[in-house]
Amino acid sequence: MQFEITREYIDYLKDLIEANDTLQLKKLLADLHPADIADIMEVLTMEEAKKIYLLVKGDVASDVLLEINEEDRRKFLAELPSEVIARQYIEFMDSDDAADVIGELPDEKREEVIAFIDNQEHAGEITELLSYDEDSAGGIMAAELVAVNENWNVQKCLKEIGRQSENIDEIYYVYVIDNDNRLKGVLSLKKLIQYPTQTNISNIYQKDVISSLIDADREEVAQKMEKYDLVALPVVDYSGHLKGRITIDDVVDIIREEAEKDYQLVSGITGDVEPSDSVFNVTKVRLPWLLIGLVGGIMGAFVISGNEEALEHIPNMAYFIPLIGAMAGNVGVQSSSIVVQSIASGGSNFHSIGRKLLKELGVALIVAFVLAALILIFNLIFDIGGSGRSLAFTVSTSLFIVVIFASLFGTFIPLVLDKLKIDPALATGPFITTTNDIMGLLIYMVIGQFLF
Amino acid sequence: MQFEITREYIDYLKDLIEANDTLQLKKLLADLHPADIADIMEVLTMEEAKKIYLLVKGDVASDVLLEINEEDRRKFLAELPSEVIARQYIEFMDSDDAADVIGELPDEKREEVIAFIDNQEHAGEITELLSYDEDSAGGIMAAELVAVNENWNVQKCLKEIGRQSENIDEIYYVYVIDNDNRLKGVLSLKKLIQYPTQTNISNIYQKDVISSLIDADREEVAQKMEKYDLVALPVVDYSGHLKGRITIDDVVDIIREEAEKDYQLVSGITGDVEPSDSVFNVTKVRLPWLLIGLVGGIMGAFVISGNEEALEHIPNMAYFIPLIGAMAGNVGVQSSSIVVQSIASGGSNFHSIGRKLLKELGVALIVAFVLAALILIFNLIFDIGGSGRSLAFTVSTSLFIVVIFASLFGTFIPLVLDKLKIDPALATGPFITTTNDIMGLLIYMVIGQFLF
Repeated sequence: MQFEITREYIDYLKDLIEANDTLQLKKLLADLHPADIADIMEVLTMEEAKKIYLLVKGDVASDVLLEINEEDRRKFLAELPSEVIARQYIEFMDSDDAADVIGELPDEKREEVIAFIDNQEHAGEITELLSYDEDSAGGIMAAELVAVNENWNVQKCLKEIGRQSENIDEIYYVYVIDNDNRLKGVLSLKKLIQYPTQTNISNIYQKDVISSLIDADREEVAQKMEKYDLVALPVVDYSGHLKGRITIDDVVDIIREEAEKDYQLVSGITGDVEPSDSVFNVTKVRLPWLLIGLVGGIMGAFVISGNEEALEHIPNMAYFIPLIGAMAGNVGVQSSSIVVQSIASGGSNFHSIGRKLLKELGVALIVAFVLAALILIFNLIFDIGGSGRSLAFTVSTSLFIVVIFASLFGTFIPLVLDKLKIDPALATGPFITTTNDIMGLLIYMVIGQFLF
Repeated sequence: MQFEITREYIDYLKDLIEANDTLQLKKLLADLHPADIADIMEVLTMEEAKKIYLLVKGDVASDVLLEINEEDRRKFLAELPSEVIARQYIEFMDSDDAADVIGELPDEKREEVIAFIDNQEHAGEITELLSYDEDSAGGIMAAELVAVNENWNVQKCLKEIGRQSENIDEIYYVYVIDNDNRLKGVLSLKKLIQYPTQTNISNIYQKDVISSLIDADREEVAQKMEKYDLVALPVVDYSGHLKGRITIDDVVDIIREEAEKDYQLVSGITGDVEPSDSVFNVTKVRLPWLLIGLVGGIMGAFVISGNEEALEHIPNMAYFIPLIGAMAGNVGVQSSSIVVQSIASGGSNFHSIGRKLLKELGVALIVAFVLAALILIFNLIFDIGGSGRSLAFTVSTSLFIVVIFASLFGTFIPLVLDKLKIDPALATGPFITTTNDIMGLLIYMVIGQFLF
């Protein structure tokens, strides 16, 4: 089961596919985990991948379908009739995965597929899940769970758990409900095993249970499960009725996705991208921010041309244009990313924006002083431009002000976006760099023109 | 249990602490999860936090200790005698958490604390865990697990599981071993409940079990558990002996930490930092990259002064210095971050570096062409500098070359670092920006001087 894709393995597989050696291929695939089959399919051509995929059946086939990337899945399902999708794939999936896959289908096909699901309870659960916002607890929960009544004893519970868990991969927790399906608590399998069979579970179940409201944001759900080290989280509606459960594997995906999103934003990439994506896709997610950077560069050109007297006043000011721009950008990205990371990890929102800015001002003053002093010493000693003290003082004064401006701006913008319920990560990366670049230049030019 | 820290709550708590109202405080704390107590302690002063902390006991106290940040834990433990650390905290912890906490102590105190642990088995396990590399599977696993012999039946297993699980929070999986403690498979609690008590477990346990070698890298462990949706992963030595298990909550922390580390590197921050850290700490993680940026800026100044003829040849070339620098930086950060993200998510390392660069060249050619064409049109129409076609052609030609260089360089460096087993994320952010800035300037100046 310890599996790594090697070039030799893939070549061997390609040979088998070309030779149509179904028997040998089936034997190879039988040893593989669905996640590995999906990985292999990604390095094969679409045609080869299809041939492989049609050799697996039942729940392995539906698991592989869930593991391949969304684009391939979409293409593959587009070619299949609704009946096949429903009966060969959806039937084998948990309700949350089924709802995700159906949610990716075109509108007209959704209803058709649901109509073909033979198990009416399953169809009903999927329909309900589809009604919740994708980014809410309802949108990521599964309807499948194991629940026992608070009035039962251990023996009755064990029997019921055995019955209910037939369609569930893993149990993790057993939830305790009242006659009205309201969540009352949680029961560990460990206790069920440890206590005598006649024990009433009301004596052994844990009444404090951490749950999520059905419309909670998925990031909130992830933070809660992470904070309390939970493997599954029950989801309730506003009346406390148990509606489903969210499992940790979904949360791991959310944490990974949110982290990737923030990383992409700070890097100036506007969407999910893999180096293996098509040249067109990679270009598409890269151009938007570069175009904004281009506009920023043009504005920079206007700032310099509009303040040409500065360059005439102090010859060789141009030498330090890159330094001012780079430092403005670097400082701004640092400030904004510290704020964004703290928000993303659920850091306490306890202090006011004013207090956070005051703190940032402290850091900025030290940093600005150190940098301005170093560049002053450098300029006074080396005097690259031959422009003497005017240039040296202009560069250092500008750098000092620019660093402080960039720090405060980089801290302020994401905090404000967060207050406005806009993703603060939007303010990181190229946005901060470009804005600070222009502002930095303006400060440098104005100081060069008037101060020394 | 649904808990949020409000300013009112904290104020109330501070009043109780000042009034020394131990009874009321204990009552409040009894309702809280250890993770919430730790959160509260972080917004209190050190003195207040200590008063709160000394009111909780036993496993709650040890859980809180694990949840507070490392700095506070270190300070707190530094004041306690080794005996108290061992008997009041370590005794209540799982072996992996205990090893982490002891690992944070100064060398001379470690042995003392271990000597004071009364449970010899626990002490032995901790000592063994301390011997593994922190970043390896052995360094993050816990010795506590539930294992049954392959020759037992369901009844015997249930009894043994009940006994073994007394010191374990959650079971998740039951591992099956042979007489020599070699891992043979895994058994789900679900099956134990479903099958008759006399069933021999060799008929029902799953023989394919995904495990990790004890010296595997922790990132590899995280990728494996994520890929196969595992809640716990058994760890074996090279002879297949079962040594411990890694649980998903540790992996969630690793995924979060690795993502944060990559995010920090691309943002130019050299360590873990929270906006709530001291001004000194925040400054410390920000200055290193800013100093390198400063050196980069100075090198930029040398590049311009060394190619002064360009500025004399085409007046107003200075106008577009910020544009060239910014675009070089933006493109480079995009390229490097796409590579780093793909490596971090365990993306297939299937294609050679040469092939990846060729692909990147495709993207770069399109991007470079679009950007160069747009700025050419702009310059020909507006002619800001009044320098006419020379400036327009110089800017566009330079931008074209700079974008291609920055793309390839941004892709190449992290790929090479990864091959050399150095963290590729080191190549993102300020490193790429600074290098590309200077190279971009050089290209711009040389072209301005000689080409048009």
